[in-house]
Amino acid sequence: MDFLFLGNLFIFGQRREFTLMAVTNALIEQKIKSAEEVAALLPRNVTLGCSGFTPAGYPKLIPVAFAKRIEDEKKLGNEFSINLYAGASTGEELDGALAKTGALKLRIPYQSNSHLRNLINQGETDFIDMHLSHVVKYIEHGILPKIDAAIVEAIEVTVDGKIYLSTSSGMSATYIQNAESVYIELTDTHPLELKGYHDIYLPNHHEKGLPINILNPGDRIGLPYIQVSPDKIKGIVRSNKPDAATVFKTPDEDCQNIAAHVLSFIQHEIKKGRIPKEYLPYQNGVGNIANAVLASMAKDPNFHSIQMYTEVVQDSVFDLIDAGKLEIASTSALTFSEKGLKRFHENISEWKSKFVIRPQEISNHPEVIRRMGLIAMNTAIEVDIYGNVNSTHVMGTSMMNGIGGSGDFTRNSHLCIFMTPSLAKEGNISAVVPMVSHTDHNEHSTMIFVTEQGLADLRGCPPKKRAELIINNCAHPIYRDKLREYYENALRVSKGKHTPHDLEKALSWHVQFLKTGSMK
Amino acid sequence: MDFLFLGNLFIFGQRREFTLMAVTNALIEQKIKSAEEVAALLPRNVTLGCSGFTPAGYPKLIPVAFAKRIEDEKKLGNEFSINLYAGASTGEELDGALAKTGALKLRIPYQSNSHLRNLINQGETDFIDMHLSHVVKYIEHGILPKIDAAIVEAIEVTVDGKIYLSTSSGMSATYIQNAESVYIELTDTHPLELKGYHDIYLPNHHEKGLPINILNPGDRIGLPYIQVSPDKIKGIVRSNKPDAATVFKTPDEDCQNIAAHVLSFIQHEIKKGRIPKEYLPYQNGVGNIANAVLASMAKDPNFHSIQMYTEVVQDSVFDLIDAGKLEIASTSALTFSEKGLKRFHENISEWKSKFVIRPQEISNHPEVIRRMGLIAMNTAIEVDIYGNVNSTHVMGTSMMNGIGGSGDFTRNSHLCIFMTPSLAKEGNISAVVPMVSHTDHNEHSTMIFVTEQGLADLRGCPPKKRAELIINNCAHPIYRDKLREYYENALRVSKGKHTPHDLEKALSWHVQFLKTGSMK
Repeated sequence: MDFLFLGNLFIFGQRREFTLMAVTNALIEQKIKSAEEVAALLPRNVTLGCSGFTPAGYPKLIPVAFAKRIEDEKKLGNEFSINLYAGASTGEELDGALAKTGALKLRIPYQSNSHLRNLINQGETDFIDMHLSHVVKYIEHGILPKIDAAIVEAIEVTVDGKIYLSTSSGMSATYIQNAESVYIELTDTHPLELKGYHDIYLPNHHEKGLPINILNPGDRIGLPYIQVSPDKIKGIVRSNKPDAATVFKTPDEDCQNIAAHVLSFIQHEIKKGRIPKEYLPYQNGVGNIANAVLASMAKDPNFHSIQMYTEVVQDSVFDLIDAGKLEIASTSALTFSEKGLKRFHENISEWKSKFVIRPQEISNHPEVIRRMGLIAMNTAIEVDIYGNVNSTHVMGTSMMNGIGGSGDFTRNSHLCIFMTPSLAKEGNISAVVPMVSHTDHNEHSTMIFVTEQGLADLRGCPPKKRAELIINNCAHPIYRDKLREYYENALRVSKGKHTPHDLEKALSWHVQFLKTGSMK
Repeated sequence: MDFLFLGNLFIFGQRREFTLMAVTNALIEQKIKSAEEVAALLPRNVTLGCSGFTPAGYPKLIPVAFAKRIEDEKKLGNEFSINLYAGASTGEELDGALAKTGALKLRIPYQSNSHLRNLINQGETDFIDMHLSHVVKYIEHGILPKIDAAIVEAIEVTVDGKIYLSTSSGMSATYIQNAESVYIELTDTHPLELKGYHDIYLPNHHEKGLPINILNPGDRIGLPYIQVSPDKIKGIVRSNKPDAATVFKTPDEDCQNIAAHVLSFIQHEIKKGRIPKEYLPYQNGVGNIANAVLASMAKDPNFHSIQMYTEVVQDSVFDLIDAGKLEIASTSALTFSEKGLKRFHENISEWKSKFVIRPQEISNHPEVIRRMGLIAMNTAIEVDIYGNVNSTHVMGTSMMNGIGGSGDFTRNSHLCIFMTPSLAKEGNISAVVPMVSHTDHNEHSTMIFVTEQGLADLRGCPPKKRAELIINNCAHPIYRDKLREYYENALRVSKGKHTPHDLEKALSWHVQFLKTGSMK
């Protein structure tokens, strides 16, 4: 077979493949350590600022080695206490490994790991559930405990301290700037052509604000790397561990029905002149429903030249690329399946114009979101008859994952759409309830609700009209009568008739579920 | 007495006084009508877009005449239906007069009139309680019923259709642009030197967004007038009715204690380097507490050169002016007492550099609020132990006034402070409750709580830590034990321990108040 060697790039006829060769230079050679050596350097009471955003680009070796050290030293009676900051959720090797040590005292600002979630809901680990666009300032202003060590996955570090991140940007730039020491997991799991995907820019939170000069999702205003003094880098660990691959389920019928309602509504809005035909930047949450929406857009001839200004890009973006419809995707992370990652690697040079990876302060920035007029599509745990949304708390008390970017996008977007199947737990939970057990997005900010049953456009509706629309269009038929009964009783007994409630029964559906296992 | 006549300005030695002379020109002469004549032109089913923002600059004669016509025609069996849009709240001659006709079907986006409030809470009038920064787009995009007539108070209309507004900007520009017909109440209650106070600028919601180029509270980016085709003006009514004068109570001890906590906290933040010394733009809600804060700043030598980027300026601004501390106040309305207005008129030329009056979309714009890093200070009806705030609904069902700008400012400010006395209704209501009966600002967005008892800084606190701080620092001593009892029981019985709640009792304080008249 004929091939031409070009750095780390092989060309086989028309098809490109990449060798994943480890970069090297004097700085790297000087700082190289094993994960165990780095783990041994970390203080017992430690605040870690890690890379990683919805498991992309998080460190995998040092946390596992640190967890091992904690287990070993526990036997000697040594106690550890860890505050863990990341961008958003991370993989098992970081959140899972550290959660299992029992030493995790605090986690910010978002998570989705089952071990960690259990600790949080048992009251063992504190969790601060933050708007992702708020985290940089909280760190810069010293609201939270100071960062001892930043641990960041990168694809290259230059001799003069330029750090090229891997598949996510998240909080890495801020954690590196604010940490006492910086440790790098230098991964060779991505081609070096990933350099140039990032656009690192952060406002100075100690000075007067200036406009964020992003007018289009693809605008670049920063640098492709994070600059740090090489002295601050205290260790570099070579890694060949890939990101935890996301597994995608084929969208079920409910997801497809939800997607169909969303697409038809967007077409309606274009016809009404509320969305210009040529300009549709989308924010799209994580998960099966979000993926079904993009997959449907890829197929639907009414949708063309899609722009995304979002926080996570998943495999569904390939459907848009295949359909020739992806204009640009701005994100804070690329979270692909194994197959998706392979495809991304094969096209990494050609697709550099299709993606921008930004710090989460910028991917989720209120100013940019409002200016671009985003269409924000996020998933709800439950909604109530007046349009309030619970995105975070199962039965009002247990944390699911966190608010993530949903507040950033909902509050400042042009159009915010909340999507959820109308039923959960084999029909024992109705996603539409009399009163949400926790409010993350309130009636003043929410606009559009979609379940597989239908869509409710609440814009310009007073509360009682909203109740009608949500019950009739979105609730599952098996719960509609019960919801109407609640609402009609509330209309009778409520002191105020603006937002009628029977406060004795407002949370009774949740109470019943906790007692009997069903809202029926 | 010697005096020099200069237009409508008299100079008596050092002191200036103004005659309030009616302007006149060919257009005005051609369009002049009585209020009754205009009222007779309005359709029976009508959507009105009126000027007015927290009763400043609202029309006073046409609405009263229209109310009179409705009463007269009712006797003939004619039915009326009115949708009333304004900037925010207005005075008795608009909200009160139309509410009393019984023909008011819909009101947006904020109100504070007692007759109207009763109708809303009896379920007679629909009210859409909106973020003030959302209203322009909803009108421009036709989400709400189309405006038949805009009725706007102005101080001058030129022959080529330049409308100079009076004491508020609010929604006037948008209502004028989108109305079928425009009617003007041409008031001579303000000197013509009010021209130039306004800065009318609105983003084009049908095109791609551009940055709002306001970097400092005083930056002007628009025009001092609204341009309209003179043909669209269907009537001009001369008015000499002043704005309903706001009455200010001397701040009581609670207000002064709250103000003292706020000021000391701001100094703490400056010391921590989280607020630069030279740069402190404030947003300050309406009412006695807000006024007490500004009055205290005026007296406190630690505060200097105050900038305000707010939606309403009240008499308390004079304290800052007298202390030589007011650098600039950007607002959507000037809402003064009778005495305050007189003082403003006497200094109207000199103070032109001190004030900018903006459309509410700009005074409350997320982009500008975030960029400037505002310190937002707003009043809460109730807060819960986890930091959720109710700003709108008494006992969860009755509308008080509306969310107004509190969501715009809270969600995007640098620092948001919620203030409330810890008790209401002679101690029968605790402002700190286990769970708020309606959520307008949630735990993810809120930061600082202040009552006369003390201050709780919730930034960087997980939910259980917040509960401790709020109960210990903010709740009134007579309710502290009962709150601790709720919290400790919740810790025991709650399924999830992240945000512990006993859902059977979470709203029981409200239920008890509704039954017995006391939360005790």
